[in-house]
Amino acid sequence: MTSPTESTFSDRHIGPRFNDAEQMLKVLGYPSLDKLVDVAVPASIRSAEALDLPVARSESEVLAELRSIAAKNKTAVQMIGQGYYDTVTPPVIRRNVLESPAWYTAYTPYQPEISQGRLEALLNFQTMVQDLTALPIANASLLDEASAVAEAVLLMRRSGKNKGRTVLDADCLPQTIAVVKGRAEALGFEIEVADLADGLPEGDINGVVLQQPGTSGAIRDHADIIAKAHDGGALVTVAADLLALTLITPPGEQGADIAVGSAQRFGVPLFFGGPHAAFMAVRKGLERMLPGRLVGVSKDSDGAAAYRLALQTREQHIRREKATSNICTAQALLAIVASMYGVYHGPDGLKAIAERVHGKAAKLAKALPGNVHQQFFDTLLVKVDNAADVLAKAEERGINLRPAGENLIGISCDETTTDAHLETLAEVFGVELPGVAEGTIPAELQRTSSYMTHPVFSIHRSETQMLRYLRRLSDRDLALDRTMIPLGSCTMKLNATVEMEPISWPEFATIHPFAPEHQTEGWRQLIEDLEGRLAEITGYAAVSIQPNAGSQGELAGLLAIRNYHLSRGDEARTVCLIPSSAHGTNAASAVLAGMKVVVVKTAENGNIDHDDLKAKIEANKDTLSAIMITYPSTHGVFEEDVRWVCDQVHGAGGQVYIDGANLNALVGLAKPGEFGGDVSHLNLHKTFCIPHGGGGPGVGPVAVAAHLAPFLPGDANNGNGNPAGVPISASRYGSAGVLPISWAYVALMGSEGLTAATKSALLAANYVATRLNEHFPVLYSGENGLVAHECILDLRALTAKTGVTAEDVAKRLIDYGFHAPTLSFPVAGTLMVEPTESEDLGELDRFVDAMIAIKGEIDRVGEGEWDLEESPLRQAPHTAQALISDSWSQAYSREMAAYPLRTLRHDKYFPPVRRIDGAHGDRNLVCSCPPIEAFED
Amino acid sequence: MTSPTESTFSDRHIGPRFNDAEQMLKVLGYPSLDKLVDVAVPASIRSAEALDLPVARSESEVLAELRSIAAKNKTAVQMIGQGYYDTVTPPVIRRNVLESPAWYTAYTPYQPEISQGRLEALLNFQTMVQDLTALPIANASLLDEASAVAEAVLLMRRSGKNKGRTVLDADCLPQTIAVVKGRAEALGFEIEVADLADGLPEGDINGVVLQQPGTSGAIRDHADIIAKAHDGGALVTVAADLLALTLITPPGEQGADIAVGSAQRFGVPLFFGGPHAAFMAVRKGLERMLPGRLVGVSKDSDGAAAYRLALQTREQHIRREKATSNICTAQALLAIVASMYGVYHGPDGLKAIAERVHGKAAKLAKALPGNVHQQFFDTLLVKVDNAADVLAKAEERGINLRPAGENLIGISCDETTTDAHLETLAEVFGVELPGVAEGTIPAELQRTSSYMTHPVFSIHRSETQMLRYLRRLSDRDLALDRTMIPLGSCTMKLNATVEMEPISWPEFATIHPFAPEHQTEGWRQLIEDLEGRLAEITGYAAVSIQPNAGSQGELAGLLAIRNYHLSRGDEARTVCLIPSSAHGTNAASAVLAGMKVVVVKTAENGNIDHDDLKAKIEANKDTLSAIMITYPSTHGVFEEDVRWVCDQVHGAGGQVYIDGANLNALVGLAKPGEFGGDVSHLNLHKTFCIPHGGGGPGVGPVAVAAHLAPFLPGDANNGNGNPAGVPISASRYGSAGVLPISWAYVALMGSEGLTAATKSALLAANYVATRLNEHFPVLYSGENGLVAHECILDLRALTAKTGVTAEDVAKRLIDYGFHAPTLSFPVAGTLMVEPTESEDLGELDRFVDAMIAIKGEIDRVGEGEWDLEESPLRQAPHTAQALISDSWSQAYSREMAAYPLRTLRHDKYFPPVRRIDGAHGDRNLVCSCPPIEAFED
Repeated sequence: MTSPTESTFSDRHIGPRFNDAEQMLKVLGYPSLDKLVDVAVPASIRSAEALDLPVARSESEVLAELRSIAAKNKTAVQMIGQGYYDTVTPPVIRRNVLESPAWYTAYTPYQPEISQGRLEALLNFQTMVQDLTALPIANASLLDEASAVAEAVLLMRRSGKNKGRTVLDADCLPQTIAVVKGRAEALGFEIEVADLADGLPEGDINGVVLQQPGTSGAIRDHADIIAKAHDGGALVTVAADLLALTLITPPGEQGADIAVGSAQRFGVPLFFGGPHAAFMAVRKGLERMLPGRLVGVSKDSDGAAAYRLALQTREQHIRREKATSNICTAQALLAIVASMYGVYHGPDGLKAIAERVHGKAAKLAKALPGNVHQQFFDTLLVKVDNAADVLAKAEERGINLRPAGENLIGISCDETTTDAHLETLAEVFGVELPGVAEGTIPAELQRTSSYMTHPVFSIHRSETQMLRYLRRLSDRDLALDRTMIPLGSCTMKLNATVEMEPISWPEFATIHPFAPEHQTEGWRQLIEDLEGRLAEITGYAAVSIQPNAGSQGELAGLLAIRNYHLSRGDEARTVCLIPSSAHGTNAASAVLAGMKVVVVKTAENGNIDHDDLKAKIEANKDTLSAIMITYPSTHGVFEEDVRWVCDQVHGAGGQVYIDGANLNALVGLAKPGEFGGDVSHLNLHKTFCIPHGGGGPGVGPVAVAAHLAPFLPGDANNGNGNPAGVPISASRYGSAGVLPISWAYVALMGSEGLTAATKSALLAANYVATRLNEHFPVLYSGENGLVAHECILDLRALTAKTGVTAEDVAKRLIDYGFHAPTLSFPVAGTLMVEPTESEDLGELDRFVDAMIAIKGEIDRVGEGEWDLEESPLRQAPHTAQALISDSWSQAYSREMAAYPLRTLRHDKYFPPVRRIDGAHGDRNLVCSCPPIEAFED
Repeated sequence: MTSPTESTFSDRHIGPRFNDAEQMLKVLGYPSLDKLVDVAVPASIRSAEALDLPVARSESEVLAELRSIAAKNKTAVQMIGQGYYDTVTPPVIRRNVLESPAWYTAYTPYQPEISQGRLEALLNFQTMVQDLTALPIANASLLDEASAVAEAVLLMRRSGKNKGRTVLDADCLPQTIAVVKGRAEALGFEIEVADLADGLPEGDINGVVLQQPGTSGAIRDHADIIAKAHDGGALVTVAADLLALTLITPPGEQGADIAVGSAQRFGVPLFFGGPHAAFMAVRKGLERMLPGRLVGVSKDSDGAAAYRLALQTREQHIRREKATSNICTAQALLAIVASMYGVYHGPDGLKAIAERVHGKAAKLAKALPGNVHQQFFDTLLVKVDNAADVLAKAEERGINLRPAGENLIGISCDETTTDAHLETLAEVFGVELPGVAEGTIPAELQRTSSYMTHPVFSIHRSETQMLRYLRRLSDRDLALDRTMIPLGSCTMKLNATVEMEPISWPEFATIHPFAPEHQTEGWRQLIEDLEGRLAEITGYAAVSIQPNAGSQGELAGLLAIRNYHLSRGDEARTVCLIPSSAHGTNAASAVLAGMKVVVVKTAENGNIDHDDLKAKIEANKDTLSAIMITYPSTHGVFEEDVRWVCDQVHGAGGQVYIDGANLNALVGLAKPGEFGGDVSHLNLHKTFCIPHGGGGPGVGPVAVAAHLAPFLPGDANNGNGNPAGVPISASRYGSAGVLPISWAYVALMGSEGLTAATKSALLAANYVATRLNEHFPVLYSGENGLVAHECILDLRALTAKTGVTAEDVAKRLIDYGFHAPTLSFPVAGTLMVEPTESEDLGELDRFVDAMIAIKGEIDRVGEGEWDLEESPLRQAPHTAQALISDSWSQAYSREMAAYPLRTLRHDKYFPPVRRIDGAHGDRNLVCSCPPIEAFED
């Protein structure tokens, strides 16, 4: 949108050309973009200065700089283990999933009709996890293994009858123990860490967590301890390694209630610690307590099998302050990679890999006299004279091992371990390798049951068929590479290729999170840069990028507030005020941070109700911990009085948490840290271009004022970083692997580009709001009549008059080639539209034209010309199969159904299924791959 | 197809699983694959030993080795110029074209209905070239600039009335002059190189070639010399730089008849010399003489605008021995990249780049007292005291310059040149840069006309819209990523991702072909390895990978034979025997090598007619130069007597040229160099996995016996390599940039894998032939009843009986989701099917099922149930728009049209247009982008 003579990256990121912007401003009646922005954004919060960031650079320059940063990381043979194992991402999956816009620009599959491809991939993930753990229901990923264990502990606490303490085996991963303790502390329940090889401790126990194999590498038969735990009324979670489960008796067969773990080693790069997909599987009876997203099979309006997210009512955004988990984002893209790794290798291939890995470990164990455990899968604990010496010797030869004490070394074999690596290690230890070595898995622990018997895990085994399977699935879906996704609150903006490319470079992708610091200088420089730039953008003193989702950022921020109050002896401050319009995660996170949620009412105009705020502050003045507000509000409006709200809370001794979900409406114009916030979390996948990936990865950095900095997240592995901070993710830098994306975005845009993007987002939202207002009234706007970066279209009057619902419009938009706007959030019966700065005028108009055409259809219902039930609105979306059917019997014509606008005649998208009956699927819960026959006509 | 316990790359490359192969063998009635192969391949030609190749390695190992080879190349700032300029490939184009299977696995658009996307991209290329050169018709790319000039020279020779010599300006690129001279020598016409700044030489001149800017960097006003040449009856070709043409008066406006050049600097990486797309544009009246492929606009059977290759009768495969060019393959993928670079930047963006480049050069020129030419675009010729010193100093600082003589240096600026580079050069030369510098293009040479005014060059300018445009176009097409492409003779096998990934690494992609040798050790090692391995596979003594297409390999091989005879004083040996079934390129190449083609008849059984062969040898015994045969034959049969044929020719003093087009049926089983060949060319895009890219790049290495090795191609740039060899491509290593693909394939497969692939290809072809024979008789097979790697389905009897043509079947296959087999080659009225080893049994059966279903449809016509004209066969293919039309009036149902098999109901491909009327387009030739309105209904 800069002038036509110069071309910079921001010109490519921002959709409207210079002339287009002028035309849009004309529609709005503003002489210039700056004038519009001056009116839209309250002067009281505007920053006086431009952002202090490095000047914008070209794509080539940024790639070159990233290459030089990457070169400061040292690649090595990573045999550190401890929950992270090197793996081979099959190139066909790397290129056609991880590096494919069709997959990575997709949104969370809330609109299942245009998400059948990724839903199938996630269902494969669930099926694989179910089979490998031998538990009947698995979810479609959690954020990391440590937080998955934390979720399992919470699940046990709410399901178990016995409300006693939670016992973690001492052989659990240290980062898991640290994360669980952090969560428990806030919620006030007791964690005991005990060596369960000695049996269960006495006393009331709610739940037990075991690890298989243990962090020491030992594998143990858990059957007895699980039985004993059950006898005492406790539930049992086993954190298990998926690859090991191809050879070892699975948790489900040992009686475990819950299995969790990481699917990282199924083809997902180490990524310096994340993002990786964790999993959770549960026994029958616990499925309705399962946190996270769950894909299930249902049927569409023609009776065909169809996938969709099941049991949506469980999601935290509905439960709010009654939530038992704040999980929202999953690690969809990584779960898809892992599932495709399973599809590619199949059960026989996975078993062969596991046997090879185990064989390598067994050979090494036989050679090493200091080997501690006689039964192991891939990891050895080895006594040595001087661990530091051995580590150094191995590192000299390019191999990283795990320091496990002064005289202890950990060695983990993985898929990439070669005989040459073993030879090198033999040299390091001064031993000879044996010719052969027997497996060490005891007979009673050897897996006998089959797994992954569904045909999907055996028919796509040539690269050609794998490629076609990936293409076929992605073709079923609508992602940003085909259409605008005008999702209010979710900000589906450009994920530029130049931002995406570096994440697969080996110097970023193959680094172990626990590699020696001198090997990771590049990573740490990039992270430090990014944290600093985010602090500058938000106006805070310090940032931690550790939280690996927005929800985790919220929790981290609220825990910082909690610990700040506690550090001052303010133990009573536990009340968190939350406006009724807030995103559900806010309340859920507050609950998890041990706070009591008090809801503040919304006024008629959508803003916070001042009187109610004052009343609630008064009522809780001694216990007020914080207020959580979103700015601009979830109603898409810049509330004029945000400083006043902050002042009120501060005046009562509370902290102000400003949810950064809508930061993309502020960048370069205003800073939450300057207009009243003490803490914010950001969503890098919203404002900073990390792609949604079909529902994750997310990155949720937490930004705080100086007084809260000591309470930023600590390091779950070794207590580095903030000793007073609660670790929130398994690894210190969370989803480090995708941070080059946001780093690149900031570097490419610079202060001017970032600010231009914000202004363009405001322009686009107001353009759409203005053009659509006469057809669908915009629910809320500021006193200036303007919205912020998104607008809520109110369909309730139309619904009352015609019966046509917001959902009908959402589904009909599919026939027009669009992903629907956000449906019924934050106000039921509405659609929330956020066009973002990346959509050009052509695409904005295409959307507006579609909406106007749909309004015309609604009018035909309203005027009685069409019966609603028999209208294309209610019948939408239409599949090609339905449209071509010889027995078309709709009251409207095929062309009316498929081509309501002439522009649709070319390159038309046909959804693979018709409208899906979610309730049917919830009543008949099926969450693993259905038989092929289910898809026959 | 190896046993199920081990997984290697060959298991991924080869489609059928172990059990599938057993099932296929059962259908064929053979107990084992080896038994089948023993019967299929004549014992007389079988190799005794396995191939002597490095043992197969895993994908990770091969990637690691390629990384270490790449690390031996030194990246540098490439300011050498001389026809090759560094450029920025926009990442969105790199990822979504160069690295996208949807684009690179596509076949040549001979089936236009499933190729509308790539045809549009190529039409954009033509339009861009037409606009920039100001000539009305441009083709859709040639192989490189030097051979494009050679083609222009040939075009002038056949079009010009004056048959005198051809004059090349001395300021043409040296590699162009060398390549043109090589072609002229074989065809026996005179080339004169003269400094045309001094005016045209006297005497008869057929054509003149000028270069703008010249290789010296000078730009000159050619208007006068062109007018004078025309006065003398000569035609004029200008080799021009596309980027310069945004600022300089274009050749068309100066009166040139032809413009040629390279589109490399439009976003195509240097690639160590290739592949790059060259172009040719001509004035009105020459369009029907234009070599190479030409995209034109026509209409489909519903009257909608549709693209297809125009004037197909011009292609050499029809003209055979009357051919005037042997060009077959284009550089489609690279032309598409260049066209998208044009779409991305638009006319304003290109001009801005050109101005930036020119500004840099002007600044430098002003600083350098030794600058020779006062009028230039991007390249300076600079007098220095000691060129070697300056080159070394610059190289030390990371900049490569061009050595242009003892006291001359060339410096070329390009899109990537920065002020910092200029500063470094100022340091090297010990000068100061001026603050500003005026442009140096004289007023009379400044371009005033507009270009690229079609909307396509202005509406896809944000990355988001560019991404969607690329996706939309590729979605219109069928490529290997969606379906088997069972093209006989064209071998559409897997292009594995791991083979493709390295080509975009900077250490391979950014190396200038004329970089100092010590900077290119990695490249040369890779090329030497590959040449050696190809020699081992073919059984020849030496290989040159220089030819950048099969046709060029043929020419190189035939020139080697020619020069061998000449070196022995055998000047009369100019007759080349070619069987009538040969690919048309054979004859065309022979003509270009100065040979006389004598056709040998085909016997009843499809083999070479022995009696006729003997008679033709006898009749030409003193003039016999060579025979060109294809083995296995183009009929898809292993002729038993190939050794006898070779002996006959050798006995008469002729050389045996074995066309390696079908080498994929021999690899690991037999070697042409062992069973009688003196020379072969290979098609790396057939046998060695270089993707077809929608019609190029090709690579056509030539392999020769020891006595021909001295005559392998020489180096057009500096005469290195074989001094006796005729340079065939502009750069010494031709399409070097894609050679890592074939290198990786051989490394991944090893001897065992390559041999297994060959066997599997034979199995698949015989499986399809056997299953289809009762429905569509297989025209030719060996005495054993077996075919080789492909089979010809004879439809002529069915056509005679029912009227249904092979073309009807080909088009109907689109409705079944398939790309058609090869149509009417080598026998009119047939379909030639080559399944390749990469298709698994599921896909083979899907194809067979489709063909059988189509046979059922033909029977309905035959039985009078359907009128042919009104049958789905003749009406095929069906677009979604036609199928959904409210006015469906076909005699058959919509479902019969769209879903003749139940399996088609899911993931159905709809072609964007119906059957295209090629003749209409040829009568009304339109070869540039039609107005948008052409696509409105």
